[in-house]
Amino acid sequence: MHVAADRRAVVLLSGGMDSATCLGLATRRDGCRCHALSFDYGQRHRAELTAAAAVARHLGAAEHRVLRIDLGSLGGSALTDRSLPVPEAPAPGIPITYVPARNTVFLALGLAWAEVLEADCLYAGMNAVDYSGYPDCRPEFVTAFQALADVATRRAAQGRRVEIRAPLMALGKAAIVQAGAGLGIDFALTVSCYQADDAGRACGRCDACRLRREGFAAAGVADPTRYR
Amino acid sequence: MHVAADRRAVVLLSGGMDSATCLGLATRRDGCRCHALSFDYGQRHRAELTAAAAVARHLGAAEHRVLRIDLGSLGGSALTDRSLPVPEAPAPGIPITYVPARNTVFLALGLAWAEVLEADCLYAGMNAVDYSGYPDCRPEFVTAFQALADVATRRAAQGRRVEIRAPLMALGKAAIVQAGAGLGIDFALTVSCYQADDAGRACGRCDACRLRREGFAAAGVADPTRYR
Repeated sequence: MHVAADRRAVVLLSGGMDSATCLGLATRRDGCRCHALSFDYGQRHRAELTAAAAVARHLGAAEHRVLRIDLGSLGGSALTDRSLPVPEAPAPGIPITYVPARNTVFLALGLAWAEVLEADCLYAGMNAVDYSGYPDCRPEFVTAFQALADVATRRAAQGRRVEIRAPLMALGKAAIVQAGAGLGIDFALTVSCYQADDAGRACGRCDACRLRREGFAAAGVADPTRYR
Repeated sequence: MHVAADRRAVVLLSGGMDSATCLGLATRRDGCRCHALSFDYGQRHRAELTAAAAVARHLGAAEHRVLRIDLGSLGGSALTDRSLPVPEAPAPGIPITYVPARNTVFLALGLAWAEVLEADCLYAGMNAVDYSGYPDCRPEFVTAFQALADVATRRAAQGRRVEIRAPLMALGKAAIVQAGAGLGIDFALTVSCYQADDAGRACGRCDACRLRREGFAAAGVADPTRYR
């Protein structure tokens, strides 16, 4: 798993606890020189972009870039359409906070930047254990994206791979908290809440808040989340 | 191949002759209700966006949307970086006009919109015969993207497919000209040139101009391209 210290990686960084842990693994465990990439896509919880910048500084990313992409204008999600309420109780099926094809779009843009940077790896923090039922957080999604990346780029046509790494895929929230704490990550910098206010304070009621709180509790790690 | 007349499709529309023919096939041959999608991604030939709007009107698209996406800021291509000259003579290998992972990004965004619209098909005009050697214009790329789409979305998780259609894949430029002419497409509306001026007039020297001119000549169809 370990790569040489001069290896470059692009790391998708939302500002939440999962992608922060993912960046921590890429830098502190795998020794990559990391270029962190966030997206301003019309999400209602824009505080996560401020959090992402703080996390990138905290973990020594070589660079942090925020790419604007007008995904919200396509609609179809409570995360980008303020007329749709964020659910505050678990419900069966894929929730309305699912943003159509979001991880496909994000990985595609990460792949583009990886190719420009001649990066060897593209890290993303999706996980399939304690997740919200999103189809693009499953192992088969990552496998299919790797197969696409292996034919999609000039780099691939020249026989050099961009390896898609989803190191949190098999971890539950508690294991993610433990991994991050073990790497010395300051989770107080991260924002998970789907409807965080501009100061990054969490609602404590949405799916993302619930999973995060349960993760800290199960891990036996103090929860630094600021609630409003 | 034919779909019912009430089927919705998203069609990627650059404003060039290939995507215009692709839209013509989707509307006039396949009878789809078409939602055309263009990208303002920092390309130097912005005249193609004006052309795309004209083509969408001409072919009766139900809607035409231009999505802004800051792909140019990632760099790495003569199409988005004005400090890199557009080659005016054929050269071996993948040319510098290749935009890293562009078709991956465009198809990802097309897939997102298709999911929101509940469209059954996503059309794109890439072709592998008379092309410029771009890795993301090959059949194996489309096959891999279909496999990704089949696991990436809520729609897919519910067993409904977005079919990726690249009906020009096996056609050379001459065959594309003939197909488009047969559908009554006014190619004068289209702009292919990589360095078209703001009025849409072509340079006549870049790869895209050369392939287009050769296509009209081989098809025996009058070339309506305006050169500057």
